[in-house]
Amino acid sequence: MQIKALLFDVFGTVVDWRTSIINEGRALGKQKDLNVDWEKFADAWRDLYQPSMEKVRSGNRSWTLLDQLHRESLEQLLQEFAITGLSESEIDHFNRAWHRLQPWPDAVEGLKRLKSKFIIGTLSNGNIALLINMAKHSGLPWDVILGAEVARCYKPLPDAFLKSAQALDLKPQQCLMVAAHNNDLFAAAKLGFHTAFVARPTEYGPHQNKDLQAEGDLNFVAKDFVELAVQLGV
Amino acid sequence: MQIKALLFDVFGTVVDWRTSIINEGRALGKQKDLNVDWEKFADAWRDLYQPSMEKVRSGNRSWTLLDQLHRESLEQLLQEFAITGLSESEIDHFNRAWHRLQPWPDAVEGLKRLKSKFIIGTLSNGNIALLINMAKHSGLPWDVILGAEVARCYKPLPDAFLKSAQALDLKPQQCLMVAAHNNDLFAAAKLGFHTAFVARPTEYGPHQNKDLQAEGDLNFVAKDFVELAVQLGV
Repeated sequence: MQIKALLFDVFGTVVDWRTSIINEGRALGKQKDLNVDWEKFADAWRDLYQPSMEKVRSGNRSWTLLDQLHRESLEQLLQEFAITGLSESEIDHFNRAWHRLQPWPDAVEGLKRLKSKFIIGTLSNGNIALLINMAKHSGLPWDVILGAEVARCYKPLPDAFLKSAQALDLKPQQCLMVAAHNNDLFAAAKLGFHTAFVARPTEYGPHQNKDLQAEGDLNFVAKDFVELAVQLGV
Repeated sequence: MQIKALLFDVFGTVVDWRTSIINEGRALGKQKDLNVDWEKFADAWRDLYQPSMEKVRSGNRSWTLLDQLHRESLEQLLQEFAITGLSESEIDHFNRAWHRLQPWPDAVEGLKRLKSKFIIGTLSNGNIALLINMAKHSGLPWDVILGAEVARCYKPLPDAFLKSAQALDLKPQQCLMVAAHNNDLFAAAKLGFHTAFVARPTEYGPHQNKDLQAEGDLNFVAKDFVELAVQLGV
C-alpha cells in the first residue's frame, strides 16, 4: 500500500530540545543572575516528561495537555534548583521555551523536500499550541498538526498513532512514522505503520547511550531528513 | 489585544465549491454518459449541507464527520437525479470532489502573505482529511487545520469557535475570523473574536442574493484576501 503521509515524532527527532532548553536557561540565568547548571536542569526537566504523561496514560489523571505537565515539572524544579525571584510572566515564558525549540540543521530543508510529495504532519505528545508556535518560530512547514491533543492520548499508547492516521482518513499502512526513538517505531510498526529511523546521537547530550542506531526490522534508516527524502524518491 | 491568528471559513470563503462541484460533475457526466443539470445538482448537494449538520448539532445524531454527511447526501441525490451505473469507487471519488475544491483566484497569494505575520488556520465544518487533501490539491498554505473535527462540534455553535481558539492557547480576542458569510461572523463576534468579511458574490452562482455585502459591526471588510493582507499591514 502506497505511503501518503509522513508522521513525525518532534522532540528529539525534529528539534534539539536539550540544546534549546540549555540556551534558554542560560539566557534567563544571565538576565536574572542565577547560578544554575543548565545542562542538569534541562535533563531534569526532560526526566519528568515520561512520569508526568504516565499518570495520564494510566488513567490516574484526566486528560491534561503537555504545556500544563511541563509547567508542573518546572515548578518542582525551580524548588529543587533553588531558583527564586521569577515573576509569573517569566516562569510562563520559560515554560514556553518548549514552543521555541530549534530544529536540527537538516530538518527544515528535509521537511520541505518531503512535503512536495507527501502529507507531512506531527505525531507528537506536544499540544497543538506548542507545536504551531514552534513551527512558526522555527520554520517547520507542517501540513497538519496531529498527535496527543487530537487523539487525547499520549504515545506510545496505540490510540495516539491510530487516531492520527484516522484523522487523515488513512490506514496505518499508508503512513510512515519517522522518529529518532526505537520505541516510537516499535509501537507504530505493531499497528501496521511503516517506519523510518533517523539517528539523533546527541539528543541526550554528549554521553547518550541509547537510540544510537536503529533496532529491529524498520523500513527506512537514514542519517537525516534530507537522506530520507532521497530514499523516498523526492 | 493583539491579533495572533487568522481563522478562515473555507467552503465559499477560500474555495469556490459551486464551480468546482459543477466541473467535477460535468467530467463524470461526460465519462459515464450522464444527462444531468450539474448546476442544479451542485446546488442540491449544498442544500443538504445545513440540514445534515443540524441533526448532529441538535443532538439527534452522534458526532459524524462531514465526509460521511456528504456521502449520505450524495446517495440521496443519485436517486433523485436518477443517476445509475456508478461503481462504489466512482461514487467515493465523486464524494471526494469536496477534497479537490479550487481556491478563489486571490486566495493562495493572500494566504501566503497573511501567513508571514499571523498563524493561519481553518475554522471549517470540513473534516481534517478533507481539508488537508484540499490544501495539498490546491496549494493552501495552512499552518494548522482546526474546526469541527477538532472541536467535535459544527459551526455556528459556540464550541466550534471557542475550542479552535483554545487549541491555539489563544483568547477569542487574539483571533480574527475571516468569512464570506455574515452569520459565521455574527456568531464569532458574539464570542469576542475579531471579524473580517470578504465578499464572494458568486459563491451561490450568478443569482446570489445573500452575503453580497458586510452586515453589522465588523472589524475588517475587504474585497479579497490580498486587500485584507494590506489592511492588516502585511
